[in-house]
Amino acid sequence: MLTNDKLAEWDRESFFHPSTHLAQFARGEAAQRIVTGGEGVFIQDRDGNKLLDGFAGLYCVNVGYGRQEIAEAIADQARELSYYHAYAGHGSEASITLAKMVMDRAPKNMARVYFGLGGSDANETNIKLVWYYNNILGRPEKKKIISRWRGYHGSGLMTGSLTGLELFHKKFDLPLAQVIHTEAPYYYRRPDMNMSEEEFTAYCVQSLEELIAREGADTIAAFIGEPVLGTGGIVPPPAGYWQAIQKVLDKHDILLIVDEVVTGFGRLGTMFGADHYGVKPDLITSAKGLTSAYAPLSASIVGQRMWDVLMKGTDENGVIGHGWTYSAHPIGAAAGVANLKLIDELGLVQNAADTGNYFWQTMRDEVGGHGNVGEVRGEGMLCAVELAADKDKRQFFDASEGTGAKVVAAMLKRGVIARAMPQGDIIGYAPPLCLTRAEADQIVLATKDAITEVLG
Amino acid sequence: MLTNDKLAEWDRESFFHPSTHLAQFARGEAAQRIVTGGEGVFIQDRDGNKLLDGFAGLYCVNVGYGRQEIAEAIADQARELSYYHAYAGHGSEASITLAKMVMDRAPKNMARVYFGLGGSDANETNIKLVWYYNNILGRPEKKKIISRWRGYHGSGLMTGSLTGLELFHKKFDLPLAQVIHTEAPYYYRRPDMNMSEEEFTAYCVQSLEELIAREGADTIAAFIGEPVLGTGGIVPPPAGYWQAIQKVLDKHDILLIVDEVVTGFGRLGTMFGADHYGVKPDLITSAKGLTSAYAPLSASIVGQRMWDVLMKGTDENGVIGHGWTYSAHPIGAAAGVANLKLIDELGLVQNAADTGNYFWQTMRDEVGGHGNVGEVRGEGMLCAVELAADKDKRQFFDASEGTGAKVVAAMLKRGVIARAMPQGDIIGYAPPLCLTRAEADQIVLATKDAITEVLG
Repeated sequence: MLTNDKLAEWDRESFFHPSTHLAQFARGEAAQRIVTGGEGVFIQDRDGNKLLDGFAGLYCVNVGYGRQEIAEAIADQARELSYYHAYAGHGSEASITLAKMVMDRAPKNMARVYFGLGGSDANETNIKLVWYYNNILGRPEKKKIISRWRGYHGSGLMTGSLTGLELFHKKFDLPLAQVIHTEAPYYYRRPDMNMSEEEFTAYCVQSLEELIAREGADTIAAFIGEPVLGTGGIVPPPAGYWQAIQKVLDKHDILLIVDEVVTGFGRLGTMFGADHYGVKPDLITSAKGLTSAYAPLSASIVGQRMWDVLMKGTDENGVIGHGWTYSAHPIGAAAGVANLKLIDELGLVQNAADTGNYFWQTMRDEVGGHGNVGEVRGEGMLCAVELAADKDKRQFFDASEGTGAKVVAAMLKRGVIARAMPQGDIIGYAPPLCLTRAEADQIVLATKDAITEVLG
Repeated sequence: MLTNDKLAEWDRESFFHPSTHLAQFARGEAAQRIVTGGEGVFIQDRDGNKLLDGFAGLYCVNVGYGRQEIAEAIADQARELSYYHAYAGHGSEASITLAKMVMDRAPKNMARVYFGLGGSDANETNIKLVWYYNNILGRPEKKKIISRWRGYHGSGLMTGSLTGLELFHKKFDLPLAQVIHTEAPYYYRRPDMNMSEEEFTAYCVQSLEELIAREGADTIAAFIGEPVLGTGGIVPPPAGYWQAIQKVLDKHDILLIVDEVVTGFGRLGTMFGADHYGVKPDLITSAKGLTSAYAPLSASIVGQRMWDVLMKGTDENGVIGHGWTYSAHPIGAAAGVANLKLIDELGLVQNAADTGNYFWQTMRDEVGGHGNVGEVRGEGMLCAVELAADKDKRQFFDASEGTGAKVVAAMLKRGVIARAMPQGDIIGYAPPLCLTRAEADQIVLATKDAITEVLG
């Protein structure tokens, strides 16, 4: 770190970084890294470090860094037309082409796509559309949203409320009253170790049924969930979970929002998580994988039964009062078109399945036996290593010890980036979908050595 | 319009456009325009039309279209490093440089800048920071936000609540309970035609004082306002308004959020509206002008007294639980750096003052005398022509007649884009800041002819 450097000084004196300890950073006590470039699964920083990014930025650089095909698509769009708005039926060749490409890849029952900027704003759009939908249907009381504890759906006021993690609620007066939370489908943290996966699914379903009965189905508009819990701990659902949940929602006429910000466009080894688990969403939230983060863009993909009501709504009320200046921004759209083409050309969805499964299964083989590794889990190109103070009794470390963060720091010394997930001592992995087996081995080895260094 | 074209068909069948009549668009009954390029104040569409954009997109393409300096900065950044996140003290040369450039231009009492994506999410951040601030100060009850009727602050759930326009509330269950609205500082629509500007300012101040007394100052956290009302009608404040409001806020320890999404970086002929009107913000919201829309980026600029409390907050609670994956996106940051340089090099802030004043004063001279023009108003590179059914009695047209929209449509036939503002028959203008006097004359002439065509 070049602490006597002007750029580093400007950084400390001017820049309010997200998810950072503001005071430590301003005082020069916290980590500071200026990233300059990247290629494939590696990033470089200004101090000459080359690091294997096992988290693809924030699970988003799915095609890997330095893809010149996408860079040139962005450059061409910038030279031709950097911006025009999409209000009142305006569009660009890139945004319309991307809309078509998204619909070609989306589950069959989807009807239209609205483009925003990031996952948080896409979920914000979704909740607005859900409320509008029930107002048009003349059900003004049917408005509450059910989310899951440990779900992650953004960090705005509404979207941070949907998120079921303490870090995003504390000191922000969240969750808002319109959001209620139900059981996290987190088998490793099941209440009774003797429960089978099927029994735990039944337990989650029963909790949901009880919540609906308590609140009244006619007050509940929608259920939102990630196919695999992401920031809450990277947790694939227990056997049969999604089918069972869908049945409950159908019974009570509750819409299903599938948040695919992490899983959309290939991370589970299928184009969408909804297809992976065989559910039928009313809304799909997408962002990260849509452009591999080369430019900001999100998508709210709207199912047919909602779209029909939205059209009725504008026939009755005129223009819909929703939009961002940068909705369907041409630069993001051009990046999206090039990115989705590249995903196809490189066969990255299949690689997420093949190398992804190799990766997390190798991780399980190599570190799963350690006395402080409670569970190694994964699905496609997602993996988590959950630490425990006492594995057999499933006792966790005290949060104040920061055990997960220590392991991640020890990995960084070995040139590999992983993420200490914010709740629990969980090491998270979400590498670019172009990961090779040799690179997977490198992440596993760094993890193994780091665990040994920190925990013996 | 090439209605038998594949792109147009994909558009109708796949693309959910913002602020659009969804059903009419899907049925092919609504306007559809595919924009392909632009230069200076002109855009081109795929059908060969060249239009003078008198609204700069959505008041955002401040440097004008086709600026290759910005396009090349975006291209270079895309090739080097399209993305890395800014969490936990990470940054890029572009994002840090831009943070420094923003702080160099911001009012003196500002301390740090947080980068988001668009104006809505920047205001979302601001409200979160205001709530956090009062929680850290141990004032959990001091949370309500006062906004003005006709203010525009976004179209999310919270930000659409701050917005004081019916289109953005209707059928969306807004405003949320945490937001309360006060008088719009809209002199032309003053309750009594005999009031002077100073008397009307006193009336607005009294309304605010009464609202604060009714709610209790210890329940009110912040006041938000645009220096010049934007989407609510493009309305400069009455004489003495901002100084008088600031006094009330100071007295009751209420924070001031100045929403400069439209006015920031030059539109009023000064770098910020806060400087223009001599107020001292605790938070400034910025977006559009920051990058001239070449790539999505917003800024929440935090004043020193808030920043001190935010630092205290992280010392007490650790990492702040707020951030977007695309916060401080390198592509947006590179566009911002190139854009702010270009604004300086081309002297666009001064041109906004000089040509802007020429523009709206010429408009006043040319159309102000028409029997259906109630008022022509402007400030810097902003102008509005407000129509009235009976000018002398200040009677307005019935909204269902769509008189403003008809005038705008008649202008479009003459090759000039203006905007029919959503509430009232108000023609809005916010051209690129590089407008010339000849181009200003062209907009005025198109307006004059269009008004004659529609209203005689």
